[in-house]
Amino acid sequence: MPAPLLNDTFLRACLREPTAYTPVWLMRQAGRYLPEYRTTRARAGSFMGLATSPAYATEVTLQPLERWPLDAAILFSDILTVPDAMGLGLSFAEGEGPRFAHPLRDEQAVARLAVPDMELLRYVFDAVASIRRALVGTDAQGRSGGRVPLIGFAGSPWTLACYMVEGGSSADYHVVKTMLYARPDLLERILDINAQAVAAYLNAQIDAGAQAVMIFDSWGGVLAERAFQRFSLEPMRRVLQQLRREADGRRVPCIVFTKGGGNWLEAIAGIGADVVGLDWTCSLGAARRRVDDRVALQGNLDPAVLFAPPAAVQAQAAAVLDDFGPPARADGRHGGHVFNLGHGISQHTPPEHVAALVAAVHAHSRRLRLAAG
Amino acid sequence: MPAPLLNDTFLRACLREPTAYTPVWLMRQAGRYLPEYRTTRARAGSFMGLATSPAYATEVTLQPLERWPLDAAILFSDILTVPDAMGLGLSFAEGEGPRFAHPLRDEQAVARLAVPDMELLRYVFDAVASIRRALVGTDAQGRSGGRVPLIGFAGSPWTLACYMVEGGSSADYHVVKTMLYARPDLLERILDINAQAVAAYLNAQIDAGAQAVMIFDSWGGVLAERAFQRFSLEPMRRVLQQLRREADGRRVPCIVFTKGGGNWLEAIAGIGADVVGLDWTCSLGAARRRVDDRVALQGNLDPAVLFAPPAAVQAQAAAVLDDFGPPARADGRHGGHVFNLGHGISQHTPPEHVAALVAAVHAHSRRLRLAAG
Repeated sequence: MPAPLLNDTFLRACLREPTAYTPVWLMRQAGRYLPEYRTTRARAGSFMGLATSPAYATEVTLQPLERWPLDAAILFSDILTVPDAMGLGLSFAEGEGPRFAHPLRDEQAVARLAVPDMELLRYVFDAVASIRRALVGTDAQGRSGGRVPLIGFAGSPWTLACYMVEGGSSADYHVVKTMLYARPDLLERILDINAQAVAAYLNAQIDAGAQAVMIFDSWGGVLAERAFQRFSLEPMRRVLQQLRREADGRRVPCIVFTKGGGNWLEAIAGIGADVVGLDWTCSLGAARRRVDDRVALQGNLDPAVLFAPPAAVQAQAAAVLDDFGPPARADGRHGGHVFNLGHGISQHTPPEHVAALVAAVHAHSRRLRLAAG
Repeated sequence: MPAPLLNDTFLRACLREPTAYTPVWLMRQAGRYLPEYRTTRARAGSFMGLATSPAYATEVTLQPLERWPLDAAILFSDILTVPDAMGLGLSFAEGEGPRFAHPLRDEQAVARLAVPDMELLRYVFDAVASIRRALVGTDAQGRSGGRVPLIGFAGSPWTLACYMVEGGSSADYHVVKTMLYARPDLLERILDINAQAVAAYLNAQIDAGAQAVMIFDSWGGVLAERAFQRFSLEPMRRVLQQLRREADGRRVPCIVFTKGGGNWLEAIAGIGADVVGLDWTCSLGAARRRVDDRVALQGNLDPAVLFAPPAAVQAQAAAVLDDFGPPARADGRHGGHVFNLGHGISQHTPPEHVAALVAAVHAHSRRLRLAAG
């Protein structure tokens, strides 16, 4: 029997249950803006040295939680571990982003692609188990348990396909979009394999102890609407259909985040996720009305707000919370809001501004609930 | 009295008047994907050498029209001519994008900023007049006149401010967004000057012969909703309020294009433009219903479609036209559609695919009108 959760505010908000305040975590919260992260990374020698070591991954995952009362931890890893396990040969050149030695450029390469043996990703599942153990703590009342839930994650089938076909980052998605429009059958095959691989990968993270999972559809927003539905949304729906949704007798919420997906919010909310992530270009209030609280929402502060002084950070955080409004509705139903940025935190962020943000979210969201009676 | 227009299909579609087919032009249609453009550019020595010479600008503006029956010409220039005339010192390093020698980094620099003397931009207005003269031709019936209308353009106040504050392109808009959140008063001053400068600049282009104008709000889509309204939309509204809207007894349509602005379509359609440009992430049909044909729409093929073979290009072009539907409505009103890409054409585009696109738009849109009776 695992230790009980001391703070389950994040899980409750994901499931649209009442909470005393709005939980907050930050995409890429264990990252380069933290000096202690840079120190660990230097010891590990490289990004992959960090990500493939359960001990290092545990260390950096916990770093932001030692500084601030964040309401969730997120596994330190990278979405490209999965195509790496498929044999595409991942490397990160310093300051250059990811590179695959063997991108999927022809019919033969696509035909050879297969769901990887999950044993090759054992280091990720070991990291999940190690982080769960490291998260056990004691609260002010002397109770022992998990301090906050641990979120596992994966890239969406389409987002992984972008990297796998392009061979790295791309400004215009020339190669993968050429395949999309010229040889959609090849892309469909890649997406089928990716969907099976992502489902198996997330299920193994859940088995290892992940208490929620998130699918990062970072590049869904570069697609035209019909292409998005076919090549990004449908494969994500297939992932969700295969996910284990309960562990230790508790629902494991799934968050789907399509960056730039605001136009398609209703469609994204309909594929079976508990929570939909939003970037900062959408109004949370308008988004909430569009989905009528059938899913919880996660987001959506512009990460650039954190470049401004604490007073501005506080005001902008309050504006995001006010835009969502009190989770409780007049008709007795509940909405769910998980405060986050609309994108990963920038490496240029002064850490003390994050302190101001976390405190402002907790304090203002408590006031909002009191004011709503 | 200027020569009459032989083909005014583009202007009529902008104003939601009946047309025999859907007009088409392509953002950046005079560009690096054309071998003849690369030849002229090599002769000119540099991008600015090309843009500052009315003779070269005329030559490259006409190049795509010599190849295909496009329905509009667009001035060959760059949105950064305006901040260059403000004294910020524009240069283009080969393969690196624009750079300003004197970006607006402090209160003093912002205080010194002023609307530039339009005489410094005389080369642009001379290019407009030169292109108008070069566009005069003779049609199959032996009538002489302008072959197609000429579109002038400018950057939006916000988009110009991004470059002016960052000093060049930016991945995360760190500097300008820090100013936005920390010192909105400084940004407001820049935007006020930019709005006045852009209005004067577009009016001078209209005086020189531009028959339509377009405002490129390339970076409006990186803003949070409230910030977009205040820092991008409102300054554009002020530009539109100052524009001359008639020349030679004919309305000069204004197109506003906020890339990534699909979430805010209704708001953008309300600032006084005749046409709203859309990127490829929006459905044109859904967009048309949202604005109820109160403005015309321009767009929105994914430029990556042009990497695919002609048959795929034709099918995707037809899908965009079908999505918009026949311009004539059952209630007798008209919608307006100007076919375009959802972004500038890629330098990797095979020119023969553009031939297939232009032919497909003209043929399919005629069929669509006939089928609708």
